[in-house]
Amino acid sequence: MTTLHGYFRSSAAYRVRIALNLKGLEHDLVPVNLVKGENRGDAYRALNPQGLVPVLETEEGVPLTQSLAICEYLDERYPTPALLPDNLEERARVRALAQLVACEMHPLNNLRVLKYLVGELDVSEQDKLSWYRHWVIEGFDALESMLTPAAGTGDFCHGDTPTLADLCLVPQVFNAERFECDLAAYPTIQRITANCRALEAFRLAAPGEQPDAN
Amino acid sequence: MTTLHGYFRSSAAYRVRIALNLKGLEHDLVPVNLVKGENRGDAYRALNPQGLVPVLETEEGVPLTQSLAICEYLDERYPTPALLPDNLEERARVRALAQLVACEMHPLNNLRVLKYLVGELDVSEQDKLSWYRHWVIEGFDALESMLTPAAGTGDFCHGDTPTLADLCLVPQVFNAERFECDLAAYPTIQRITANCRALEAFRLAAPGEQPDAN
Repeated sequence: MTTLHGYFRSSAAYRVRIALNLKGLEHDLVPVNLVKGENRGDAYRALNPQGLVPVLETEEGVPLTQSLAICEYLDERYPTPALLPDNLEERARVRALAQLVACEMHPLNNLRVLKYLVGELDVSEQDKLSWYRHWVIEGFDALESMLTPAAGTGDFCHGDTPTLADLCLVPQVFNAERFECDLAAYPTIQRITANCRALEAFRLAAPGEQPDAN
Repeated sequence: MTTLHGYFRSSAAYRVRIALNLKGLEHDLVPVNLVKGENRGDAYRALNPQGLVPVLETEEGVPLTQSLAICEYLDERYPTPALLPDNLEERARVRALAQLVACEMHPLNNLRVLKYLVGELDVSEQDKLSWYRHWVIEGFDALESMLTPAAGTGDFCHGDTPTLADLCLVPQVFNAERFECDLAAYPTIQRITANCRALEAFRLAAPGEQPDAN
């Protein structure tokens, strides 16, 4: 059985949960409490030296790290339904949309970074919030302008079925809402997010639906 | 002809330069001066709304963004020599190593983030340097521990030919050296970097070799 080690509020784990659900893959969920520092313990470090979630243990027990690498693995191993289009330029577009979130937005706003800002740099609560919103706005401005005029955009970020890009978008929107970012300027992002959330695969992957969400 | 829009010191452009060289692809280089803000101009924004480098224009003139998406595109379109292994778990390992650099280290230390720390949060030069080194140490500690005990590691991050992981590693090491980070604790990273730098594809991609490096 495939096993996902994650944390209910981790965006990266959330992406993998959506992928597992879209693929209809049975799996075990093992919660790793980041707030209690369980990810820093020896047992977890043996799975992932970086101490980050998620880790996916394959059916053969091989631990895989980094959410996008895990999603690409799942897509290669269990190809239906596909998380990437067939056409090479379209694949590049989907990956670029996913990476815009995963490489430009999420890394700046995750827990360990916010902790460093407050703990090491004495940044005020208000400045931390401004930092957070700054990178959300910068990222979503770009994402919206890549999505809105593009022929590739459909009901979802690319076409009319969910792709790797939607797996990244929805957790990022969840986070932005949690930090009360104003999303009024992003009608396309909002439309696509609503379409995703109407699907059971996304709904069941949401943080509030996880066993450790208490 | 394939065209790369980049900046000599951009890690992300550096990765793509290495990929183009390894593949032996003839290409044009168009410098975009980030310090002068050329990436914020309308002409460049038309290519990439996010205003980041690099952009790769394909042979057909399609603009692609995000360095890892571009490298995967190049690998799919021009498969030899391959930047990813065939085996699915090995592909996941290479992508995870690449993403450890591209999603966990580089985003925290690039120019726009350092500018925000100094300009918006009034962080001192010394604290900026500590921030920089903190994320290098955190990332390289993890990378070294993923590389050193692993059977997959060879002359390069994975096996005995360069992969996507090495494309990310070498620019990150270049940056770490530029910010005078102490790399003594990372013998495997240093060994692999030296092996990469011995190859012409890596040497010619280095920032100092670029036309805009003045």
